[in-house]
Amino acid sequence: MSTVYKSLIISPNPDKSIKTYNPGYMAISDNGKIEEIREENLHNKYKGYEFVDLSNYLIIPGLIDIHNHLPQYAFAGIGDKELLPWLENYTFPREKTFENKEIARESAKIFFSDLLKNGTTTSVTYVTIHKNAADIAFQEAEKAGIRAVIGKVNMDQNSPEFLTENTEKSINETKELAEKWHGKENRLFYVVTPRFAVSCSLDLMQELGKIAQKSDYFIQSHLSENRGEIDFVKKLFPESQSYTDVYEKAGLLGPKTIMAHCIHCNEEETEILAKTRTIIAHCPTSNRFLKSGIMPLRKYLEKGLRIGLGTDVAGGYSLSMFNEMKEAIENSKYYQVFVDKKTEPITPAEAFYLATLGGAEVLGFENETGSLEKGKNADLVVVDYKKTDPENGEGLYNEPEQILSRLIYRGGEQSIKEVYIKGQKVVKFA
Amino acid sequence: MSTVYKSLIISPNPDKSIKTYNPGYMAISDNGKIEEIREENLHNKYKGYEFVDLSNYLIIPGLIDIHNHLPQYAFAGIGDKELLPWLENYTFPREKTFENKEIARESAKIFFSDLLKNGTTTSVTYVTIHKNAADIAFQEAEKAGIRAVIGKVNMDQNSPEFLTENTEKSINETKELAEKWHGKENRLFYVVTPRFAVSCSLDLMQELGKIAQKSDYFIQSHLSENRGEIDFVKKLFPESQSYTDVYEKAGLLGPKTIMAHCIHCNEEETEILAKTRTIIAHCPTSNRFLKSGIMPLRKYLEKGLRIGLGTDVAGGYSLSMFNEMKEAIENSKYYQVFVDKKTEPITPAEAFYLATLGGAEVLGFENETGSLEKGKNADLVVVDYKKTDPENGEGLYNEPEQILSRLIYRGGEQSIKEVYIKGQKVVKFA
Repeated sequence: MSTVYKSLIISPNPDKSIKTYNPGYMAISDNGKIEEIREENLHNKYKGYEFVDLSNYLIIPGLIDIHNHLPQYAFAGIGDKELLPWLENYTFPREKTFENKEIARESAKIFFSDLLKNGTTTSVTYVTIHKNAADIAFQEAEKAGIRAVIGKVNMDQNSPEFLTENTEKSINETKELAEKWHGKENRLFYVVTPRFAVSCSLDLMQELGKIAQKSDYFIQSHLSENRGEIDFVKKLFPESQSYTDVYEKAGLLGPKTIMAHCIHCNEEETEILAKTRTIIAHCPTSNRFLKSGIMPLRKYLEKGLRIGLGTDVAGGYSLSMFNEMKEAIENSKYYQVFVDKKTEPITPAEAFYLATLGGAEVLGFENETGSLEKGKNADLVVVDYKKTDPENGEGLYNEPEQILSRLIYRGGEQSIKEVYIKGQKVVKFA
Repeated sequence: MSTVYKSLIISPNPDKSIKTYNPGYMAISDNGKIEEIREENLHNKYKGYEFVDLSNYLIIPGLIDIHNHLPQYAFAGIGDKELLPWLENYTFPREKTFENKEIARESAKIFFSDLLKNGTTTSVTYVTIHKNAADIAFQEAEKAGIRAVIGKVNMDQNSPEFLTENTEKSINETKELAEKWHGKENRLFYVVTPRFAVSCSLDLMQELGKIAQKSDYFIQSHLSENRGEIDFVKKLFPESQSYTDVYEKAGLLGPKTIMAHCIHCNEEETEILAKTRTIIAHCPTSNRFLKSGIMPLRKYLEKGLRIGLGTDVAGGYSLSMFNEMKEAIENSKYYQVFVDKKTEPITPAEAFYLATLGGAEVLGFENETGSLEKGKNADLVVVDYKKTDPENGEGLYNEPEQILSRLIYRGGEQSIKEVYIKGQKVVKFA
């Protein structure tokens, strides 16, 4: 159904500033595309369109989470253990349960439903090593209506026995899943997912790199999160110059590769990431929760590295990209305090860009989503933004930058009213 | 009305562990005191009491916020400016508006209502320099039913002209307010509030110290938050050994004095704080938001310093003590990462203690509130804790420590069902 919305609208610009329509009118065609958006009454121009007055609300683009782990969501927010016992007690046993299809299905339903409730309309997601579980995740993402980039995890060494795959089987199952799902409805995509260099043999990584390159699949892995992990990789690959070099030699880096964390990369490593145009998933909530450090976000942006934000659930405790934006800003402040006084923190507008258009650009989805512009999909979040204001919108602080800042610091699932993907309502709260 | 509640109950112990009743029964008399609490059916024993089955919920003690600024709540979450322009653009002009009684009243209503909605049943609060505004804050706290320690701010130098008081008037108004309100209903208390050493003359501080000591009022101020502030204090008081020494010489330290922040105190200063039994308000959200640093919480606890948690709204962006507990833990992790590898982070149970019984103990309220024990007031929060669980309470992670951790990391106003003070319902959500 074609619709004209009237609302306060805030959308990111490619230069990381914000564009505000106050109020704005947005015409959406029945194929779910934005036909026109401006600060001018479009009500009369688009005759026959349903007119929806959302004057008391704010519309922003759907949010983009470029790194999370579906099976780990079940224990999000449980922080009673250190990293190793946390992996042993929570992550690995939980991932094992995904051999059970019912658990895999129920978990996927909850996961995509909660992503949408949090305003996330595009997600890049790890499942487990289980082919069925990954297939089920795709099925549930398809039903939920979300844009999703999903991968079966590959791991064939240095892992608990019950999560260690046969290399050939791992490769074959990856191919099957990718061929089945990649590009479906131009909304579901396959991401080849070697977990990280520690848990993958060089053979496995090289073969996965070839598969991805041949068919233009995405690739995702983890890079330079934790000092212990970095030392382990050095021991496993003594001939490599660096952790990043391991992935480069394995043929895994490139403009469709998403490397999560990249906290401790040295100069040479960031040069490789820049040269290969590899995407970095910055996960600030997880940086702190797992005591990993702080990724130098401002410095990486200034180097022109390609960066999006990820919740890293359950290294992060929340699926909310509002929380992730806040953590990106707040951690960049501590980067200045504790690491480099000369590096300025990022602004709310910059964090907003990273969680929307920035994420779309690095994934190559910028012609379809990430901002509210003519010709793009109507992927959008209707926010009850006055709820985040102690004075309920009746006070003095209602500049767009102030509204955005408050949304980032005080918003969350509870401040979302509705979520749309391609113009279709996928979430509605009371 | 006398009531027996059945619920999962988690309450802090003085050794910072938690006590769990699963399920627990709690009998509350009609004077609002807890008569009995145990893991045994009290339904039959307390005949004639209303029985309320809250089996699907969790009851915790009311939360205690020992540092916040009432007038600043209006711009909570606005982080688009650095500290100095933030003060000049937001804090000072906003505080000026409190000369208007209607603004002061409306703001106080919102503030105490939102504290209660966040489960905070005890608050230690700064108003502004305006006597009327402080009086109104007391009136509204009285109506709201909250336990509140409130002070008119004193400042007679180095402040914007419109916030600079005549010293004598400042002292006299302080006396009048304190005499009027301190001890009312054993629920409202006066706190003498020299803003901080920069904005108070030595004469003013000394006189305020005498007034407080004579009548056993609380005292609150700010100490060692920011490097620039510390340097300024050094210049203003060249004869003093340290920032802390300034307050000690002014007669402001003691077991009823709450000093907010104390981030950069040296060994000699913490010795003074220990010796005088001065209370520290740790405000971790604000530590990061304002780029102040991280208070060494674990080290201070090991030294036996007396510590509670404060939101420091609007140096903090949220009135939620769940958020503050989370920030206390998460910042203690970054303290380990960036400042001292040997200092272990605090646990969810320790954070919970600080936000409840710990706060009550430092304020001297431990016989009345802060934990759920026989003889104490029924100050409690009913939490819809399953809402914080992605699996809605039906998954594997339902140990009390896990429930508590999830509540801290994923809870907030939206997970609170009801709030009681002295057995009286003060907040009820749909």
